[in-house]
Amino acid sequence: MGRRLIDFAVELASAAGDLIARRFAEADKGVGYKSDNPGVTATDRDAEALMREMIESRYPSHGIIGEEYGVDNPNAEHVWTLDPIDGTISFVAGVPLFGTLVGLMEQGRPIVGVIHQPVLGEMVVGDGTTTLHNGTPTRVRDCERLEDATLLTTDPNLVDEFQDTARFEILRKRVAMTRTWGDCYGYLLVATGRADIMADPIMNPWDLIPLIPIINGAGGTITDWTGGDAVTGSSTVAANRDLHPRVIEILA
Amino acid sequence: MGRRLIDFAVELASAAGDLIARRFAEADKGVGYKSDNPGVTATDRDAEALMREMIESRYPSHGIIGEEYGVDNPNAEHVWTLDPIDGTISFVAGVPLFGTLVGLMEQGRPIVGVIHQPVLGEMVVGDGTTTLHNGTPTRVRDCERLEDATLLTTDPNLVDEFQDTARFEILRKRVAMTRTWGDCYGYLLVATGRADIMADPIMNPWDLIPLIPIINGAGGTITDWTGGDAVTGSSTVAANRDLHPRVIEILA
Repeated sequence: MGRRLIDFAVELASAAGDLIARRFAEADKGVGYKSDNPGVTATDRDAEALMREMIESRYPSHGIIGEEYGVDNPNAEHVWTLDPIDGTISFVAGVPLFGTLVGLMEQGRPIVGVIHQPVLGEMVVGDGTTTLHNGTPTRVRDCERLEDATLLTTDPNLVDEFQDTARFEILRKRVAMTRTWGDCYGYLLVATGRADIMADPIMNPWDLIPLIPIINGAGGTITDWTGGDAVTGSSTVAANRDLHPRVIEILA
Repeated sequence: MGRRLIDFAVELASAAGDLIARRFAEADKGVGYKSDNPGVTATDRDAEALMREMIESRYPSHGIIGEEYGVDNPNAEHVWTLDPIDGTISFVAGVPLFGTLVGLMEQGRPIVGVIHQPVLGEMVVGDGTTTLHNGTPTRVRDCERLEDATLLTTDPNLVDEFQDTARFEILRKRVAMTRTWGDCYGYLLVATGRADIMADPIMNPWDLIPLIPIINGAGGTITDWTGGDAVTGSSTVAANRDLHPRVIEILA
């Protein structure tokens, strides 16, 4: 795969992130938000429209799967996945842990992923072999025992809804600590060696595909909650190679 | 109480926050951290030492209760509480949700509180009557039903250790969503109307005293997990006046 496609993925995430960070700064965070806040919806749409225009202009033959504007030419050799604001609940609460996700598939296989946290100023870019954090190679950290691990998930209430809470509670009580530094930020923290396990009970292609080249490129393992192929799954578990099988043994 | 004491509390938190934000920016976030990371300990100590020097120079007759350097003249009419980095686990993971807490008691009664998030650029200052968020008056948001509420806690694993997990799980399953936007940041989010309930299963005077004038000044209620006086408690529940009794009914 060409260097050009990786660079273009970064360009997409940067352009969307600039727009989103500007809107976030302007948002009135002192008032009570609703989760269907119209401000975040407009920002989500505008950022995806911007990325779609950039793709259509540069690579008109490529396909696109976007959270906001759906599927376009999904059988193309190259298909982009776009999630302009992954973590809208954080955005709406004025908590800057949200990010932009850009993925690229080649013949159905994820080959590039970008997580960009525009307010925190952090970006990870993975191609399945190498993952860069703000330009520097990064790896998952060593951690062999669940008892020493930091576990992340987006929201335990989503576990109730989509997976087995009792199994998740067994895992949660085994680990050293649990945080909802969630959505795409959780995978960024695992890939950069700042947390050990990220588990999401429900996923969509646009928030899942980019994570695969990032976690693999950082030397970690990513599957669904049963230990099955992450690409076709609808849930995700990412961890280093020692911990991952222990997590799956509990969750699956 | 004089305006001067509130201004001085802000000066203390600002000075500590500047030091802490600088150290955080310099910290190597790409490596695996330990929770007893010496970098964070040094920063914690240096920031508290700075605030202590400022107090001793300006108000030599005042007492101090600090997380790092202990208790000094606790029977003075005015006693400051200092927690330079509340959220060291966040700091160590390179997650900027930590903050500096400064409190002031007069004859044992909390009269001023400051939460300063130096990286996020957010500060709340409360005197029990009014709470300001970056200089503008702020209030808890309306929310009457637990089913609509956002619940925050620092770490559910601390609930296992210090409170009744089964009761907390009842509360968690009732609410709309749960997040560990925790430590002092959780109280800032409740005081600024961006989350509804913050519950911490274990507290110390330096991370508890400042919250009381802030939550009260924002029109909310703060007690311990039994509904008892927050000042003498070792746990905290903060919420608006509608939700607070419903939370206590479940937890107590």
